[in-house]
Amino acid sequence: MGLVKSLVPPALGGTAGTLIDSIIITEELFAVEPSVSLTLLGIGLGLTPVFLSDFKGREDLRSEILASFTDMGDGTAAPLASLCFSEPAGSANYFEEEGNGVQTTAVYNSDSDSWILNGEKVWGTNCCGWDDLGADLQVVLVRNPDVTSSKIDASMLVLVTRPILDQNRSDGNQDCYSIIRHLTTPGFTATAGPHVRFSNLRIPSRYVLATGATAAELITATFTSSAIIVGAMSVGIMRAAFESALDFARNHTAGGKVAVLEHQSPADLLIDIKCRVEASRALTWKAAIAMDQSLPGADELAYEAKIFASEAAVKSVAEAMRVVGASAYDADQWPFARMMADALVLPIFDGGNQGIRRRQIQDIFLGKDYRPWAATFASVQAETKA
Amino acid sequence: MGLVKSLVPPALGGTAGTLIDSIIITEELFAVEPSVSLTLLGIGLGLTPVFLSDFKGREDLRSEILASFTDMGDGTAAPLASLCFSEPAGSANYFEEEGNGVQTTAVYNSDSDSWILNGEKVWGTNCCGWDDLGADLQVVLVRNPDVTSSKIDASMLVLVTRPILDQNRSDGNQDCYSIIRHLTTPGFTATAGPHVRFSNLRIPSRYVLATGATAAELITATFTSSAIIVGAMSVGIMRAAFESALDFARNHTAGGKVAVLEHQSPADLLIDIKCRVEASRALTWKAAIAMDQSLPGADELAYEAKIFASEAAVKSVAEAMRVVGASAYDADQWPFARMMADALVLPIFDGGNQGIRRRQIQDIFLGKDYRPWAATFASVQAETKA
Amino acid sequence: MGLVKSLVPPALGGTAGTLIDSIIITEELFAVEPSVSLTLLGIGLGLTPVFLSDFKGREDLRSEILASFTDMGDGTAAPLASLCFSEPAGSANYFEEEGNGVQTTAVYNSDSDSWILNGEKVWGTNCCGWDDLGADLQVVLVRNPDVTSSKIDASMLVLVTRPILDQNRSDGNQDCYSIIRHLTTPGFTATAGPHVRFSNLRIPSRYVLATGATAAELITATFTSSAIIVGAMSVGIMRAAFESALDFARNHTAGGKVAVLEHQSPADLLIDIKCRVEASRALTWKAAIAMDQSLPGADELAYEAKIFASEAAVKSVAEAMRVVGASAYDADQWPFARMMADALVLPIFDGGNQGIRRRQIQDIFLGKDYRPWAATFASVQAETKA
Amino acid sequence: MGLVKSLVPPALGGTAGTLIDSIIITEELFAVEPSVSLTLLGIGLGLTPVFLSDFKGREDLRSEILASFTDMGDGTAAPLASLCFSEPAGSANYFEEEGNGVQTTAVYNSDSDSWILNGEKVWGTNCCGWDDLGADLQVVLVRNPDVTSSKIDASMLVLVTRPILDQNRSDGNQDCYSIIRHLTTPGFTATAGPHVRFSNLRIPSRYVLATGATAAELITATFTSSAIIVGAMSVGIMRAAFESALDFARNHTAGGKVAVLEHQSPADLLIDIKCRVEASRALTWKAAIAMDQSLPGADELAYEAKIFASEAAVKSVAEAMRVVGASAYDADQWPFARMMADALVLPIFDGGNQGIRRRQIQDIFLGKDYRPWAATFASVQAETKA
Repeated sequence: MGLVKSLVPPALGGTAGTLIDSIIITEELFAVEPSVSLTLLGIGLGLTPVFLSDFKGREDLRSEILASFTDMGDGTAAPLASLCFSEPAGSANYFEEEGNGVQTTAVYNSDSDSWILNGEKVWGTNCCGWDDLGADLQVVLVRNPDVTSSKIDASMLVLVTRPILDQNRSDGNQDCYSIIRHLTTPGFTATAGPHVRFSNLRIPSRYVLATGATAAELITATFTSSAIIVGAMSVGIMRAAFESALDFARNHTAGGKVAVLEHQSPADLLIDIKCRVEASRALTWKAAIAMDQSLPGADELAYEAKIFASEAAVKSVAEAMRVVGASAYDADQWPFARMMADALVLPIFDGGNQGIRRRQIQDIFLGKDYRPWAATFASVQAETKA
Repeated sequence: MGLVKSLVPPALGGTAGTLIDSIIITEELFAVEPSVSLTLLGIGLGLTPVFLSDFKGREDLRSEILASFTDMGDGTAAPLASLCFSEPAGSANYFEEEGNGVQTTAVYNSDSDSWILNGEKVWGTNCCGWDDLGADLQVVLVRNPDVTSSKIDASMLVLVTRPILDQNRSDGNQDCYSIIRHLTTPGFTATAGPHVRFSNLRIPSRYVLATGATAAELITATFTSSAIIVGAMSVGIMRAAFESALDFARNHTAGGKVAVLEHQSPADLLIDIKCRVEASRALTWKAAIAMDQSLPGADELAYEAKIFASEAAVKSVAEAMRVVGASAYDADQWPFARMMADALVLPIFDGGNQGIRRRQIQDIFLGKDYRPWAATFASVQAETKA
Repeated sequence: MGLVKSLVPPALGGTAGTLIDSIIITEELFAVEPSVSLTLLGIGLGLTPVFLSDFKGREDLRSEILASFTDMGDGTAAPLASLCFSEPAGSANYFEEEGNGVQTTAVYNSDSDSWILNGEKVWGTNCCGWDDLGADLQVVLVRNPDVTSSKIDASMLVLVTRPILDQNRSDGNQDCYSIIRHLTTPGFTATAGPHVRFSNLRIPSRYVLATGATAAELITATFTSSAIIVGAMSVGIMRAAFESALDFARNHTAGGKVAVLEHQSPADLLIDIKCRVEASRALTWKAAIAMDQSLPGADELAYEAKIFASEAAVKSVAEAMRVVGASAYDADQWPFARMMADALVLPIFDGGNQGIRRRQIQDIFLGKDYRPWAATFASVQAETKA
Repeated sequence: MGLVKSLVPPALGGTAGTLIDSIIITEELFAVEPSVSLTLLGIGLGLTPVFLSDFKGREDLRSEILASFTDMGDGTAAPLASLCFSEPAGSANYFEEEGNGVQTTAVYNSDSDSWILNGEKVWGTNCCGWDDLGADLQVVLVRNPDVTSSKIDASMLVLVTRPILDQNRSDGNQDCYSIIRHLTTPGFTATAGPHVRFSNLRIPSRYVLATGATAAELITATFTSSAIIVGAMSVGIMRAAFESALDFARNHTAGGKVAVLEHQSPADLLIDIKCRVEASRALTWKAAIAMDQSLPGADELAYEAKIFASEAAVKSVAEAMRVVGASAYDADQWPFARMMADALVLPIFDGGNQGIRRRQIQDIFLGKDYRPWAATFASVQAETKA
């Protein structure tokens, strides 16, 4: 599991490279086996708020949190991290001021200097751990009901480690963390993101990662870099669909004299798919480079890479099936059914293209000093200097 | 099973109505349960070449063939019919003159005045019957290798009844009909269209339904009316996807203050889906009416209804999922994963939008006296007269 | 100009038929010469609020208004009617309660029992008449600034006839009606919908057609039937683009051996365009029949026909150009440049697909008792009864 | 006119940079004034076959040809170059072996050691020069009718300079070069690409640039780099359409309370356009870098950048108009009509997306050792090394 270590930045004891490295690896993984890969990427998503946080004055907490991810002993350990963000009632409009907002609450208990968690989460990849008793680390978005000034002011990110869960259980609270339901999903069947419940889970106060605007910014920043990763997942699936359909078109005649590829109609479909793969990949890479270089406008590019590539992926898998014809529906012979099952989640998870991301771009557009091509011109300048 | 009887025209002992009746029923069935419905429609597909054939001078054969479908005794019988057209190597380019063509052959044996069938078929809905020993009726496209003048001249349609199969088996040929493989498909899991093999199956010569151009025309005519049925299937699935997404959008807030439907972005997606459902339905109905009235150009409309509606269905289910967001991927709560699994086959079966249908329309366009709006103007005249 | 008379219902002295008649004629006109045709349809748009109004107790006013459109003497008269709705600052969000709303005002003057109009309008087809002094009839949407309860309560429709304008001018107010600017538009160059100004124009009070909710409903109903007409315009242009591209593809080889149409790639484009024409036409006709029969849900179908067909038209003309290649850009040889110039306005005029129509459908979807398929099922029942 | 000099590589006396430099400039030019810019780019297209040719042993010819483009005296000269490729009967299927092929012929005359040109060309940007007597340089694709082995073997590229034309005229052949017709086009009205005729034009044999496969490869290579330039033109137009629509959406309320951009529906359209601009630009830049670095697969990327960006441009301008609504049709106030008029040519000129380019990609796909991601992996390696 050197792979897990590769998710952690060198400065924190790991071997991670840049975002551009990550997306190249992600594309390769998703071209081959998306379901297992998602576990790995879920770990990265869970660790990102930790990497992005300022632990000034409490570096020991960070070391404690990351220990199992950097020091893996004999190599048999398989530590899991998870970001617990979504809730059963939906999360697209969380921060809408007059809505209900986050329903998982953390109430401060001064006697024990700890926070008491109650509520339900869903879609947290890896959150339940390998044994349904909880991952090594869950980063959980909660709301402090005692703060009423604004939805953002009330938000908190807390670190729920496995030792904390075990301690609560040995203290007699067996129900502190329970699985309500494992979801049935069309794709990614090797990955778990169940519906879970926190019941009077006690978290020592030092495990609060961030509060208020800082917490909200961490969530946004995490989903921003994650958006680029989803772009790369999309490219990986599209690319594999193209390769399979091309393989069919080069090597089958469908009862005719020449290869299917010699006919313009399927060739045109393949060309359209290829254009989409290349455009999506070019955009995703550009977004990653912009993010790695902290260029202005990098966040907008990240959301656009996610939206564009994920919708292109669904369309491309459907078109790849039309190249192949009825055989594409034969799941024993061709991987298209599985590819589509996986691709379908890309536009709707990790924020949802219709929800948080689109509104984030809309907000960016509405910004007083919005410069649409900042990332491009900055990158030109950067390249010119280089 | 009065439903089966409803597939047979009144003149032949059944209660079937017009094609417009059929597509209204098909839409309803597919809006509720496509998988079981496909069995019923597969029966209709298998019977269509029989209905369209001229049995002049051998009406007794038709009565024999249709008996189990019109006289169902105590109502516990569930007779199955099937059209066996596709082959494992693909069928889009069957009639391409220099290709290999149909690989299932029928060789005449003058001693027994019968034809000996050998070859493999796949995707024949219902073909294997309830017990894998063969449906009550399989209409099988074969090639007579002794006719070499053209692919079309060599084509034949033979009637493989269950009694014929049973007779071959009792004559000692246990392998006359065997299942090579039941396919794993993403949707329509209640329907069987397996990969089967005919081995030295002996068919008395009177069971030849048609040969040469007549056989080719029967296949074309069968898939033409079937194309309209696929249009209605597509409308049914799209409609159900719209209804589910609308239900979500009216009754959930995704954590916000107002219903999701009050936001323009998901509303716009729903409007796009609705437009596609209405346009697809209007076109499918128009095609059915044109076919029922034998208007010129009805066949072109039929193919266009199939192509347009089936591609609209795949797109619409994907967009419906974007209305709902991540919950749409939860197959326990929402039917979208199943809908997409079903919808995916619509553009690629029954000919395949890239294959036989598109080339059929291209041929129509190339016709010397092609009049693009014949079906419309004829229908105006028909309405004016009425 | 029997054509103008054909816009007026028989009960009011004309020869008009049903909406389905109108759209068949509209498609034919737009397939041949959209620009002149728009003048004719603009007359229809201007007269529609009159036809839809209840003139109970003042039938003489209606007769006076319609006289020039039904009794055309020696046939040399060419009367013009116009609906003046849009304003220079945009009109998509007119009825948004906290917006500025309609800026053209009508203030009551009790001394003269008349209303004084001030404000600017734009895009009113035919409004200026043949001589820039005003059409025979302008139906003008205005706001009564003395009514502040709601935007809708304050709205009024007033009848500005040419005699009224002439009277104002002979009373010394030469500036009562002036042309600020004739617009330069890419298409429809034979049609005028200029930017005009009303300055202290005095309208006798009997020329108020409707006020408040009644006025708002008239506007909505007028644009609803107009939406179907735009659907038919779109079909006409698309159809003509298909015919021209088919003509090219059948009769040119682009330097090769066979006709362009024998290649799958351009044939596929033509098939896609044909599918869109047929689907758009089927939907438009269905909407017109539903409206003629006053079926529930007819208004929703009308908006959907407009949105679907108009966006299909723009896409189809662009694809028709790709069938033809560079020659399509040669405006001396092919009509595509003109077709696109015309098509571009279809999605954005008469409400604008992003504006009033989409929000109208969204409102319909939000309706408590919304039944998505009411128009279809009602029409099935109607057909069954017939 | 230092701009012209900037089209010539430094090694040949100019100041040109890399292809990536060219596309950045092209995007800027097309965002502001496409029509004049096309003249400049037409010069580049005409010079490209010269730059790509091996003049070994006849460097003096190259110097003579390029003199007017590098040594511009007092700066008042405005030399024009042009590639004359297309013919009135269409050119998409030129090299189809059984077609008619190139109709402009060059027949060798041994007495004068020269070639006699006859035939017609069209769409050659700049070809007629400023005075309709011919550009400084026309590079003309012709066919040698005495070579019948194959269409490619028979192809030739000849250099028709203005001095050659003048010499023919002073020798008494006033009709050696004539303008049949200046084309009327919807956009690019400042650029001339007329229908011209060569009549018995005598070209000294040293002005043959290339013959046979070399000539065909020069044409292909010229259109390959040109394809990337068209990608950049498309990005420039799309970008300008986005900027104009954004400007509208930020600064207008369309009669409502808030800016149009605050509504999700127009914001979604803007986001879709923005995604397309960014994806198209990223792909175009990637193609240019791949070409500059001579990476394998660079040609395929070039064609894909052209296809993808040009079709995206047409779609994006149409959607930008929907953001703005009816005002977008007012050509005095907004530039959208002009943008669409320009954008329409992008998918159909310079080969035509349905024609030579698509078949070029299809050929690449059919290549025995085709590696779909060669350009990407090579570029990864290049970046890794760097």
